[in-house]
This record gives sequence, C-alpha cells and structure tokens, in this order.
Amino acid sequence: MGELAAALAATAEAVTSELDRLLPVGDGLESRLHQAMRYASLNGGKRLRPFLVVNSARLFNVSESAALHVAAALEMIHCYSLVHDDLPAMDDDDVRRGQATCHRQFDEATAILAGDALLTRAFEVLASPRTHSDPAVRCELVRELAAAAGGYGMVGGQMVDLLAAENAHLMDVAAITRLQQLKTGKLFGFACEAGAILGKASNRLRLALRAYAHDLGLAFQIADDLLDAEGRDEEVGKRLRKDDDAGKATFVSLLGPERARSQARMLAEQAAAHLDAFQEKADLLRQAAWFVVERRT
Amino acid sequence: MGELAAALAATAEAVTSELDRLLPVGDGLESRLHQAMRYASLNGGKRLRPFLVVNSARLFNVSESAALHVAAALEMIHCYSLVHDDLPAMDDDDVRRGQATCHRQFDEATAILAGDALLTRAFEVLASPRTHSDPAVRCELVRELAAAAGGYGMVGGQMVDLLAAENAHLMDVAAITRLQQLKTGKLFGFACEAGAILGKASNRLRLALRAYAHDLGLAFQIADDLLDAEGRDEEVGKRLRKDDDAGKATFVSLLGPERARSQARMLAEQAAAHLDAFQEKADLLRQAAWFVVERRT
Repeated sequence: MGELAAALAATAEAVTSELDRLLPVGDGLESRLHQAMRYASLNGGKRLRPFLVVNSARLFNVSESAALHVAAALEMIHCYSLVHDDLPAMDDDDVRRGQATCHRQFDEATAILAGDALLTRAFEVLASPRTHSDPAVRCELVRELAAAAGGYGMVGGQMVDLLAAENAHLMDVAAITRLQQLKTGKLFGFACEAGAILGKASNRLRLALRAYAHDLGLAFQIADDLLDAEGRDEEVGKRLRKDDDAGKATFVSLLGPERARSQARMLAEQAAAHLDAFQEKADLLRQAAWFVVERRT
Repeated sequence: MGELAAALAATAEAVTSELDRLLPVGDGLESRLHQAMRYASLNGGKRLRPFLVVNSARLFNVSESAALHVAAALEMIHCYSLVHDDLPAMDDDDVRRGQATCHRQFDEATAILAGDALLTRAFEVLASPRTHSDPAVRCELVRELAAAAGGYGMVGGQMVDLLAAENAHLMDVAAITRLQQLKTGKLFGFACEAGAILGKASNRLRLALRAYAHDLGLAFQIADDLLDAEGRDEEVGKRLRKDDDAGKATFVSLLGPERARSQARMLAEQAAAHLDAFQEKADLLRQAAWFVVERRT
C-alpha cells in the first residue's frame, strides 16, 4: 500500500470511530432515528473530506484529536447531504456506497429526519470545547461550515443541480463550474481551511489552502463525471449515467472525455502548486490531488 | 389591545424584519431556494418562541438587537421543522398558517432543501458576532440550540410522533408527555434559557426559566390538542383532527377534554410561579402562560 493509501485508510478508520462515539443510540422509540443516522454515516465512503481536514491541520501542528472532531462534524454534513439528495423527491437513488440508500433501508420520513439530525449534530460537535480551547475558533468554524453547507453553498448548489435539466440552455462550462463550486467545492474549501482556522494560520497560508481546495474540488468533480460516463455501477457502488439519462450537461458532455481528463489533470497540478509554501510537509495533500483525478471509484 | 397582545405583535413584527434581513435572495437559479426559505418563514405565525427569547432576555437587560438575532435563529429552526413535518412522507399537510405548505407552493425537493438551508442558516446567525461580543456565549447558544433541536430533542420527538400510531399500546400519559417534551418542550426551553445565557445569568435564575419553559411547553401542547379536538380548521389555519384520524393518542384522548383543560391551567399557574424571583419584571411572561392555554388559534 502506498503512503497516500495508508494515510487515507488510517483517517477513514479514525473518523469512523469518532463518528461511532459521537452518534450514540438513545432509548425509546427514537432509537430508530439514531440507527438511521449511524447507518448513513458509518458505512464506509472514502472519507476524503476528513482526510483534508486532518492533513491541513497537520500543517499547523494542530492536535489530532481536535482535527478528528472537526472532521467528524464535516463528514456528518456530507452524509446528511447524501441522504437527502438520494430521496425520491430529489435524485431518487436506491444504492449508495454499494448498499441500500437510507430511505430504502428505513423509510422516507426516517431518512429526512436522520439527515436533519446529522446536520444539527454537526454544529453541536463543532461548538463543543473538544474542538478547540478558544471559543472564537469554534465560532469561526461554525460560521464557515454553515456558510459552506447552506443556501448560498452546498444546498444552493443542489437546488441549481435540480433545476439544471430544465434550464439546459443556460448550463455552459462556466455555469457547471459555478454549480460544482457550490455543490462540492465549498465543503472541500471548508475541509482545507478548517486546519488553518484550528491552527490560527496566517491569512496568506489560509488563502493558499483555499486555492488548493478550489482546484481540487473541481478536479474531483470532473473525475466524478468521467467515472459516471465510463465506470461500471458495481465497481463505483452507485447508479451511474443518471445525468446523461436526465439530459443534464456535465463537464464530460460539454468538453468530451479527452479534454475533460486533461482539464482535471491540469487542475490537480495547479492545486498541488498552491501548496509550495508548505514544502514537503504538504506531500500527502499533493498526492491527494493526483488521487482524486486517477481514482476508479 | 391588551399589554400582552401588544407585546406579542411588536415582537412578531420585529422578528419578521430581522428574518427578512437575514434571508436575502441570491442570484442565479438557486434564488428559487431562497424564495422558498422566505415563504416558509416570513408568513406570520404567532412568533411565540421569539417572544420568549426577547422577554427572557429583558429580565437580564440584554440588548434588544442581540435578543432579536437569537430569536430569528430560533424561529428559522421552528419554521424548518414545520416545512419538513408537512412533507408528504411525514404529516402530508397542504395548509399551514392559512396558506399552502411549502412543498405545495413550490415542490417537495425545494421544500426539503429550504428546510435544510434554514436549519443551517440558524447556526450561522447564532455564531456571528452580532449575537454577543463574547464567543463563549455564542458557542453555548449553538450547543444548546443544537441539543434542543436535534436527534435527542425536537427531531427525536418527531420520530417518536411518527411511530406513535403503530405503538399505540405504549402511548400512555407519561409517554405522550415525554414525546411532547422532546418535540416542542426542548425548543421552548431553549427560547427561555437563551435570555439567561445572553445575560450570563446565575444558575439559579437559569433553572427557574427552564422550569417555567417546561411547564409552559406542556400547557401549550395540551391546549394544542384541545384546539385540535374542538377548533374549526378555518379559524386555526391548519388541518385539524388528524391525530384522531390517525388513531394517535393525545392528552385529550387520554384524559378527556375536562381533565386536559384543568391540567393545562394548572401547568400555566405552576409555570407562572417559577418566575417569582423576577417579581414584576416577569409579568409579560406570566401573562404568556395564560395566553397559551386560553388561545383560540
């Protein structure tokens, strides 16, 4: 196993234990809700966003325990967004990460509530003293995550995505780039900036990480479109080619697979270049930029 | 207009302007989402929770602007919960506050996302410096609101409520009391404690407010059940008798209307008594306890 694969596996394991600890099953009838929250978040996944939190935090010698706490909160947001996006009224998906989606395993009402509760719990976790001894740091994390995840961030991006098919004439490369920047880019941005916030980094280093995250997020999304166009359902663990079926424009449909692939590689290179100031300390983050482009799932 | 009616109207107007300011409409296709967020939260309502925040904050001479900021965040949570509870997969309601529910006015996907974005925005607002100059106070508000609204609070209560019909044999008065404590009591509790947190009140006074909120919340819920059993749809502004139709136990079905009414009045009296330490400064809160029991909508 390469250095990056080992680091990804270690973070995935650590953040999964952290989530396990942070999402206990209560008593009473509501334990069904807690089971659904755990089902939706303890089910594997690449844990790429936690990896970015942990490794950007390392650049500033932030304690591993604080970074994992923030990483778990961020992953709760990511997992809630998948649960809600998979609902019948949205993307209507039956399979996620190779298993039944939350509303298929439980039911729609439980899935809606499990998403709501994961989203809420994320902010409770971030605001708790274990995140950082300085409450000003915790408040900044709450504000930044809410801004990245809310109506002017990820949720706004999901709204645009739902309207994209019927507004196909508007969806050129610039519009798709903006959509993806909202839908996935902003959470990637938070993942990388969180390390800088925890480490009280200078504005210059924080901006460098944001620029890295911006390019990484876009490269990730183009690679996703390529996988969607060329991958096999069983390997990727979710239903593929639904954008195509829905008549939605993607980077691949607009640029063609060749130009899309070279664009993703160019972005990965550019992402890595933003990390120059961190020298060899940022090697894992540089490798992650290549990984998101070359991944097969 | 009585003193309480005037105070309720003034808070309702002030919190509605605050929500208007805090929920701008963005550019791009996602403006549909922002319209739905505004539709769901600028549509009237009694604004009882904001009233409790503002008037508990006054006990400690907290600035009106800070109290309204917190009141608006709390009302966003309340409004998001109504949007999600009204969805077809949950209570499946078409009318709320006398107008079409959010998913009927827009569509299900937009309603789910509008709820998510309101919930997220609430924490962004709470964590912002306008709430309080001390970030430790802001963090405490974020944690307390998340605990009250999440899977071990309001959302947990909604889960129990959804499972109550098929578990009718378990739903005695104690179980219904616990359900309502989760579903509505915890947000009432936050509303009253928020003033104490903003005012850095002593633990003794904070506990007195929590006890007041606990009794008030239960009295409110029993009055709700009475309205549901005896009110007229047009007057109350939502579909009534759906608990009865669904075969769900309520305070009224378990106790009968007479005992339920006297129980609600007893709780209102008890709620008012918890405020003794505040003397005449708490008169409006005492009147509010009577109001929730005697209201007609």
